[in-house]
Amino acid sequence: MTEPETSRREEDAHALDPDRVEAIVEAVEAEDAPLLDALMEPLHAADIADLLEQIGPGERRALIRLWPGGIDGDILSELGEGVREEVIEALPQDVLANAVRELDSDDVVDIIEDLEEPQQRQVLDALDDADRVAVEQALSYPEYTAGRLMQREVVTAPEDWTVGHAIDFLRNEEWLPDQFYHVVLIDPRHRPTGYVALGKMLASRRDRKLSEITEDSYRTIPATQSQEDVAYAFNQYHLISAPVVDADGRLVGVITIDDAMSVLEDEAEEDILLLGGVGDESLSDGVLETVRLRFPWLFVNLIATNLSALVIGHFEGAIAQIVALAAIMPIIASMGGNTGTQTLTIAVRSLATKDLTSSNAWRVVRRELMVGMTNGIIFATLMASVGWLGYGSALLGGVIAAAMVINLIVAAIAGTLIPLTLNRLGLDPALASGTFVTMTTDAVGFFSFLALASAVLL
Amino acid sequence: MTEPETSRREEDAHALDPDRVEAIVEAVEAEDAPLLDALMEPLHAADIADLLEQIGPGERRALIRLWPGGIDGDILSELGEGVREEVIEALPQDVLANAVRELDSDDVVDIIEDLEEPQQRQVLDALDDADRVAVEQALSYPEYTAGRLMQREVVTAPEDWTVGHAIDFLRNEEWLPDQFYHVVLIDPRHRPTGYVALGKMLASRRDRKLSEITEDSYRTIPATQSQEDVAYAFNQYHLISAPVVDADGRLVGVITIDDAMSVLEDEAEEDILLLGGVGDESLSDGVLETVRLRFPWLFVNLIATNLSALVIGHFEGAIAQIVALAAIMPIIASMGGNTGTQTLTIAVRSLATKDLTSSNAWRVVRRELMVGMTNGIIFATLMASVGWLGYGSALLGGVIAAAMVINLIVAAIAGTLIPLTLNRLGLDPALASGTFVTMTTDAVGFFSFLALASAVLL
Repeated sequence: MTEPETSRREEDAHALDPDRVEAIVEAVEAEDAPLLDALMEPLHAADIADLLEQIGPGERRALIRLWPGGIDGDILSELGEGVREEVIEALPQDVLANAVRELDSDDVVDIIEDLEEPQQRQVLDALDDADRVAVEQALSYPEYTAGRLMQREVVTAPEDWTVGHAIDFLRNEEWLPDQFYHVVLIDPRHRPTGYVALGKMLASRRDRKLSEITEDSYRTIPATQSQEDVAYAFNQYHLISAPVVDADGRLVGVITIDDAMSVLEDEAEEDILLLGGVGDESLSDGVLETVRLRFPWLFVNLIATNLSALVIGHFEGAIAQIVALAAIMPIIASMGGNTGTQTLTIAVRSLATKDLTSSNAWRVVRRELMVGMTNGIIFATLMASVGWLGYGSALLGGVIAAAMVINLIVAAIAGTLIPLTLNRLGLDPALASGTFVTMTTDAVGFFSFLALASAVLL
Repeated sequence: MTEPETSRREEDAHALDPDRVEAIVEAVEAEDAPLLDALMEPLHAADIADLLEQIGPGERRALIRLWPGGIDGDILSELGEGVREEVIEALPQDVLANAVRELDSDDVVDIIEDLEEPQQRQVLDALDDADRVAVEQALSYPEYTAGRLMQREVVTAPEDWTVGHAIDFLRNEEWLPDQFYHVVLIDPRHRPTGYVALGKMLASRRDRKLSEITEDSYRTIPATQSQEDVAYAFNQYHLISAPVVDADGRLVGVITIDDAMSVLEDEAEEDILLLGGVGDESLSDGVLETVRLRFPWLFVNLIATNLSALVIGHFEGAIAQIVALAAIMPIIASMGGNTGTQTLTIAVRSLATKDLTSSNAWRVVRRELMVGMTNGIIFATLMASVGWLGYGSALLGGVIAAAMVINLIVAAIAGTLIPLTLNRLGLDPALASGTFVTMTTDAVGFFSFLALASAVLL
C-alpha cells in the first residue's frame, strides 16, 4: 500500500502546499521561531486556519506555544469550532484580547456563540464596553438567525440626499466598514427605503437624487429570519448585501454576501453529512469524539436491521426448505434501499432549494411512483431471468419479479413521503431519513419476497 | 392519506406562494392574459423561472403561448437546463432574440453551452456581431472553467491614476457594467496589478493615488482554472470579485461573487446527488428521463448484490444446517454499509473543501481505522449478547462479534481509500463511491460471517 498522496494537479490550485506544511511542522519541531514566522507570513488567515486543523493536536499545541503572537482575530474567525476552542484555551489572555478586539462585531458573535460559558466570558471581558454591548445585543437574537449573522455597522444616508451629498459625507467620515457595496437610504424613523450601489453612485452626476438611482434588487431581511432562508435569498435574487430590520421595520444591521455564502456552504454540508448518517462532525475531531458522534446513527441502524432479522426469522421454515432464498433476499432489499436513497436524495435537495413545494408535491410523488414502477419492471425482468436460468425455477423467477416491483414502488413512496413528512413537522428532512427509508425497504423487501416464496413455492 | 402540503411557516419566507401559483395556473387555463400579466408582474425573474419548473409540462406550454412577450433574458438565465431548452423551443424567434440581446455575455454563454447545436445557432444568430464574437470567444475556453464563468466587461484604470481621476472617468463613462465593486488597476501591457474597492475610493481624498489604497484580498484567477476551484477561492478568501487573466497574465475578464456562489451551490448539489446515486437530475425531468438517469446506478447495484448472492450461495450448506445465519447475516452487512457510508461522506466532503490533503491523509485513515475498530467492538459486544441470549449460543455470539469487528474495520478502510484513490485518479471522489463501498462491505460482511460460522459452528 503506497502513501495516498494527492498530486499537485491544476485542481489543487488553492490547496495548501504539502511541502510548506511539512516545512512548518519541521520548524515547529526544531523550535525555530524566525523560520516559522517566515513560512507563515505569506499565508492567508483562512489557510493558516486550515493548516492548524490539518496538523495533529500535539503539533498544534507546539505551534501555538512557539508562535503565540501570530494567532490573530482573522485566524480565529476561520477556524472550525473544535480546534478553535482548543486554540482559545491555549492562547495567553492578552493575545486573545488583542485578537478579538480587532474583529467586527459579527465575527466576534460567530466566535463566541460556539464557546463554553467560561470561555465566552473570557472573550467578552477582552472587548471594549461599546463592542461588548453590540455583541451581547446580537447574542440576544436566536441562534442561526439573520440577527446573529448581520454586522451592525451600516453606511446610511437620508432619502433626500443627492449623490454629491453622499460622496462628500463618505469622504469626510472618520470610520467606514472594511467592506460595503451599497449606501442604505433611511427615512426619518430610521426605516430603510432602498439602497444605492456604489458603482451607480460613482457613475451619476453630483446633483442626482439618491432616491432616483436605487437598485431594483433591494429587499430587506427580518432580523429573526433563519440563516438558511437568508442564504437562499442571496442566492436566488443575486443579492450582494441586504439591510436587516427589526419587527418595526427599523434598520438594525446589514448582511453581506460573503456571510451568506458561508451559510450556503454550511447548510449544504449539513445536508450531505445528515444524508450520510454523520452528525456535526469535522475532520479534526479525535477518535472518541468521532465514535460518540457516529454511535447513535449506527445504533438506530442496528435496531432497524434486528427488526429485519425478525422478519427473516419468521420465514426460517421456508429458508430451510429452499436455501437459495437466503442468497436472493438481500438483492431485493438492496435494490429497494438504493431506489429509496435516490428518491430521498432528490426530495431532500429539492426541499432545500425550495423547488419542492405544496404546489408540485403530488406531481413529484406521482412521478417517483411511475419511475419506481418502471425501474421495478425492468429489474424484475432481469432478476426473474437470473432466478429462472440461475436457479432453474420459473416460479422462483416470478416471485423475485413480484417482490422487486413491490419493493421499488414502496421505496419510491417512502423516499418522498418520509422527507415531506419530516419537513411538514418542522424537522430537517435530511435528518435520519436515510435510516427510515432503508429500514422500510429492508423490511418490505425481505417480507414480500419470503412471504410470496412461502405461498407460491412451498 | 392527506395532501402533503407545506405550511407557510417562517421557514418558507422566500418560497413561491402556492396560492399565487394556483391563481396563475387558473389564469392560464382561463386564457386570461391581462390577469396573468398582473399576477406575474411582481415576481422576480428567479421566481418566475421556479414557477415554470414547478408547473406541469402542459401548463408550461400554455403559459408561454399566452404570455410570449413575458419571457425575458433574466428568466431564461434562471431556468434549469431541461426546462430552458423546452422554453427556447417554444418561444417565437423575435422574442428569443430580444431576450438574449439584453443579457451580459457571461449569461448568454451560460445559456448557450447547454443547448443543442441548432438551438445554439438560433441564439447566436439573435446577437449583435460584437456580442456574438464575445460569446464565441468565451466558448473557446473549456467548459466548467473560469473563462466560461467570467464577464468580459471590466472597469479598469491605469496604475498611476489618482482617486479624482478615476471618479471623473467613471462619471463621464457612457457605459458601465450593471454590477461592479472594484476598479482593476492595469499596467501598460494590460496586466492587472491590484484592485481598489469602490467604498475605499469614495472614502479617500481626490489626490490619493489608487495604487496606495489597493485591497489585500486581491488575487487573480487563471482563465483555465476549474470553476470548482474558483468557487473555493471566493469562499476561502472572502472575495467579492477577482480579475481573470490569460496565460500571459493579461486581463481578460472578471468573475463576481454571485457567479461563484451559484457554482458553489451547484458543486455541493452535484456531490449530494452523486453520493445519493443519482446523476445530473432535476425535479422537472419526465418519468422516462428519470428512469434513464437512475438506471445505470441501479444496474451497477444489481450486479454488486448478485455478487454478494454468489458469496452467500457458496455457504448454502451452512445455512441449511443453521437457518438463523440467514437472519443474522444482513445485520453484519448493513452495519458495515452504514459505517462505510459515514466514513465515505466525511472523506468526500473533506476532499471537496480541501481539508483532506496528502499532509493529513494518513492521519485521517488511521483515525477512521480506530473509529471503525472502536465502534466494531461496541456493536460486536451488543450483537454478541443478542446472538447469545436470542439464539442461545455463545459460540454464535462470538462469530457475530468477530465478523462485526472485521466488517467495520474493512468499512473504515474502504470508506477512506476508495474516495482517496478516485481523487488521485483525477475522478470525482463522490462518483459511484457509495456503490463500491457497500459492495465491499456486503461481500466482506456476508463472507466473514458465513465463513467463520462454517468453521466454528459446524
